Amino acid sequence: MQRFKCTIEYDGTGLAGWQRQPDRPSVQEHIEYAIYQFCDETVNVFTAGRTDAGVHAKGQVAHFDIEKKVTKQKVMGALNFYLKEHSIAILNIETVDENFHARFSATRRHYIYKILNRRGPAALDKKRVWVVHKKLNIKAMQEAGKVLIGKHDFTSFRDSECQSKSPVKTLEKIEITQHGDEIHFSVSAPSFLHHMVRNIVGTLKYVGEGKWTKNDIKKILDAKDRKKAGPTAPPQGLYLVKVDY
Amino acid sequence: MQRFKCTIEYDGTGLAGWQRQPDRPSVQEHIEYAIYQFCDETVNVFTAGRTDAGVHAKGQVAHFDIEKKVTKQKVMGALNFYLKEHSIAILNIETVDENFHARFSATRRHYIYKILNRRGPAALDKKRVWVVHKKLNIKAMQEAGKVLIGKHDFTSFRDSECQSKSPVKTLEKIEITQHGDEIHFSVSAPSFLHHMVRNIVGTLKYVGEGKWTKNDIKKILDAKDRKKAGPTAPPQGLYLVKVDY
Repeated sequence: MQRFKCTIEYDGTGLAGWQRQPDRPSVQEHIEYAIYQFCDETVNVFTAGRTDAGVHAKGQVAHFDIEKKVTKQKVMGALNFYLKEHSIAILNIETVDENFHARFSATRRHYIYKILNRRGPAALDKKRVWVVHKKLNIKAMQEAGKVLIGKHDFTSFRDSECQSKSPVKTLEKIEITQHGDEIHFSVSAPSFLHHMVRNIVGTLKYVGEGKWTKNDIKKILDAKDRKKAGPTAPPQGLYLVKVDY
Repeated sequence: MQRFKCTIEYDGTGLAGWQRQPDRPSVQEHIEYAIYQFCDETVNVFTAGRTDAGVHAKGQVAHFDIEKKVTKQKVMGALNFYLKEHSIAILNIETVDENFHARFSATRRHYIYKILNRRGPAALDKKRVWVVHKKLNIKAMQEAGKVLIGKHDFTSFRDSECQSKSPVKTLEKIEITQHGDEIHFSVSAPSFLHHMVRNIVGTLKYVGEGKWTKNDIKKILDAKDRKKAGPTAPPQGLYLVKVDY
């Protein structure tokens, strides 16, 4: 038996997200079926983060075990061959020992959320950004974002279905930068609550619109009440970009 | 009658290119039909550059005349409403006088060609880049690209169906830069021959692979023979990004 660690890029459009679902295609199902087609083994693929429906990945990480004796080059070539009809690409494969676990060995997750901030709609990036027509104040969002950095009880930014044991998380980075018409929110933490990044972006957007200030964000964080924060930003702007081990 | 100048973004995937075709949907047809739906007028939309099938635009420019009295804001809103099922977005509309012509008034066109240069296939940008797995030597391509700058007879980079009166063009800029896994070729000229950018990229790729050198590019240019240059790079990596007036 050999354990493989793989780095994956996918376009989440039209998929049920990472996790296998009874009724809709998912990234996990496509990859597990590609492995089955390649080596006739039914495996479980474990991931660093179960992205939601419509969320994309540029550097998702997963692991799986294969009995058949194969090189990592062979696995990469075969999986990409069987995945070629889907918008899922294996970018790298490494052999790892059995102590490695894509989820439990991960030390840090990096996400980017993209807002397209312009009058015109999106054409090229229709399903890849959140289109906001009203001009957002980036400086105000940058200042307000700083309030969230550090170890806090993030209950106000936690989805009601979140299965995490504790609402306390350590947000290590939130950088907000302009790239032409786009605004990128780059966030990093050892781990996140369910919908935490999208809830933070949906809340900071209100700051960008001038509806709320940095002080409001402080009050929202302290309130530990999901109802006090802004709405959940839509999934199509979110990208899992990197996982550290 | 009022003439409008519009700036357009589109995803060329699945379209026959800019120009109206009898059998397949085109950007021109979608925009002309949106104008018809909006104001019941059958117009001709004139463009700065008739992009080929599969080629994208971030800043295409076109003009058209409308009899109905309407503001530019109204035209922009209405066209985007009727275009929303397609991957075509009107980014800006201006009123211009009747001396303005999208094609003949244009003084410079700017294109970007994107190569995704990595072992793994494309997932997020499947129809938006040319995937080249072999590592390309950027420095060698940059040096070789300089040979092409200036006023030359570009017959070696001209498609056999090109309708331009002269093969002499002035290539003002060719910048080759790395952006993560991507290599971008940014090229600017008052005008281009048919397939000129794609033929240049297909030829410089051979330099990046070590097959040809800067001196070979000089010889190819001097030969004034399309058969001496490299193949035409595929359409999906090409973007018309800006038109100057």
